[in-house]
Amino acid sequence: MDLQIKASDLEQAHERIKSHIHRTQVMTSRSINEFAGCSIYFKCENFQKIGAFKARGGLNAVLSLPKEERKRGVVTHSSGNHAQAVSLAAQMCGIPAYIVMPETAPEVKKKAVKGYGAEITLCKPTIQARKENANRIQQETGAFLISPYNDNNVIAGQGTAGIEFLEDTDGLDALITPVGGGGLLAGTALAAHYYSPTTKVFAGEPEGAQDTYLSMKAGKMVTVDRPDTIADGLLASMGDKNFAIIKELVEDVFLVNDEEIVAAMRLIWERMKIIIEPSCAVPMAALLKNKEKFAGQKVGIILSGGNVDLGKLPF
Amino acid sequence: MDLQIKASDLEQAHERIKSHIHRTQVMTSRSINEFAGCSIYFKCENFQKIGAFKARGGLNAVLSLPKEERKRGVVTHSSGNHAQAVSLAAQMCGIPAYIVMPETAPEVKKKAVKGYGAEITLCKPTIQARKENANRIQQETGAFLISPYNDNNVIAGQGTAGIEFLEDTDGLDALITPVGGGGLLAGTALAAHYYSPTTKVFAGEPEGAQDTYLSMKAGKMVTVDRPDTIADGLLASMGDKNFAIIKELVEDVFLVNDEEIVAAMRLIWERMKIIIEPSCAVPMAALLKNKEKFAGQKVGIILSGGNVDLGKLPF
Repeated sequence: MDLQIKASDLEQAHERIKSHIHRTQVMTSRSINEFAGCSIYFKCENFQKIGAFKARGGLNAVLSLPKEERKRGVVTHSSGNHAQAVSLAAQMCGIPAYIVMPETAPEVKKKAVKGYGAEITLCKPTIQARKENANRIQQETGAFLISPYNDNNVIAGQGTAGIEFLEDTDGLDALITPVGGGGLLAGTALAAHYYSPTTKVFAGEPEGAQDTYLSMKAGKMVTVDRPDTIADGLLASMGDKNFAIIKELVEDVFLVNDEEIVAAMRLIWERMKIIIEPSCAVPMAALLKNKEKFAGQKVGIILSGGNVDLGKLPF
Repeated sequence: MDLQIKASDLEQAHERIKSHIHRTQVMTSRSINEFAGCSIYFKCENFQKIGAFKARGGLNAVLSLPKEERKRGVVTHSSGNHAQAVSLAAQMCGIPAYIVMPETAPEVKKKAVKGYGAEITLCKPTIQARKENANRIQQETGAFLISPYNDNNVIAGQGTAGIEFLEDTDGLDALITPVGGGGLLAGTALAAHYYSPTTKVFAGEPEGAQDTYLSMKAGKMVTVDRPDTIADGLLASMGDKNFAIIKELVEDVFLVNDEEIVAAMRLIWERMKIIIEPSCAVPMAALLKNKEKFAGQKVGIILSGGNVDLGKLPF
């Protein structure tokens, strides 16, 4: 197995970003444990800067750029958390950030990105328009393009959540993350591989965006046309760099439907009194659908983010 | 000043209950600090057992009963958090709990109380019916009646949140709590008085249930007919035991309207990703309405609870 990202890459990423991020807490809930029939540890990346784990990958990617290259700024296209992560990182480095966002992105997200001093370019809400605009800006400005997930520095950055999680818990039998583009899943799998090889890594994925599930079954990358799920953070298709790691290190991918995702989200809101977004509830939904597999085990779940539009809740 | 509850009472209460409750964390938020113009420390009693600080008072009241007296059980009337607190405490002591609840209480609250093994008696939703039923049960069973707030053991129990808060922070200029029956406010004021006398204690109160505000102005207890506010945990009228403490030790009571309460609640949900109930948002609303008073200060806010009906959110 030839992994492109080494333990030293994860460690350097953590060293690079750790003074800029929160070391998020690990929470437990007796009533959820009773309900699930196992002992669950939740790493609360919903409390991370920008409200999601993506702060880690964005910061590592920007801070990894040589200072000369960095000066011209960074560019990305995103409607969500990655846009905020890159904007925050650029602000910290005092460099320009150019963010291409679909016109349809919620005002609250545009406002957050502007709040970090980034320059927003609005475009039609298609992946093609987003890429074209990002490429054009890159050519015009010389800024560096940062992919939301298909990037080794981003993956290594996301993996730092796993490093902390394994340091702050003891003897986890399993780790479960959501999977969209695959940055968090690949990073977590690498962290477990290097620091806790007996911990098995699983993913939860929405039925309506099951490209990782299908790719794992096929042994090669498969895409899904028109993905559709309430877990809006998981609509992206997995990147090839991510898949190279996931297919080697991830034990299994569990599918869940939107109803199961909303039920798991509500359970965590009600019992733990914390706010998580639908994408973030996917691992909990996966665990509850596969209770017998985890019975009596110590299971770690990374709560990926808490950026939810309170005006549009599914309850 | 002749305070009925001594420092030793608070300390004994803490000793009695501390292995049964969570030592809740203190959270901060840079973006909320910027917004408010001061440094705020939030003591997260929304993460407390039963989802509210009331676990403290209920436990202290039940555990303070002599074992002989305790055996016959405890009785109370409550539609909310106090019912759960007493039921939990009774379950821990292995004694019966008789809870009188209005027929109109939400199913989720009835279910929670039943979950602790308590016996529920439903009655008409008037304070008279609640009291009559509780008295009848007390006579029939010999169970001990535990008031939700007008009880020195309950007040001392609620004061343990303040003890922890002052231990876990340094040099707070001010502490703000909500006020309904006055148990948390009186307990917090006692904790500050004994352990941090330079910390001034304030309360936030809904305009629609302003009996504490009016009582402070009048220097004697004043009641409000038909209190009405979204902060459903603060509809109760202050008890005389509570007022005796509050009028001596509390600096000021700030009024806020329902709109301000909902805005403060939303701010905390969005920025901190934690769930608080409307009553719990009242101190934050009071602070934001009186920014100039707290400018640059270190302010502690007790987040009192997180039991909110997700099906009926005010957003």
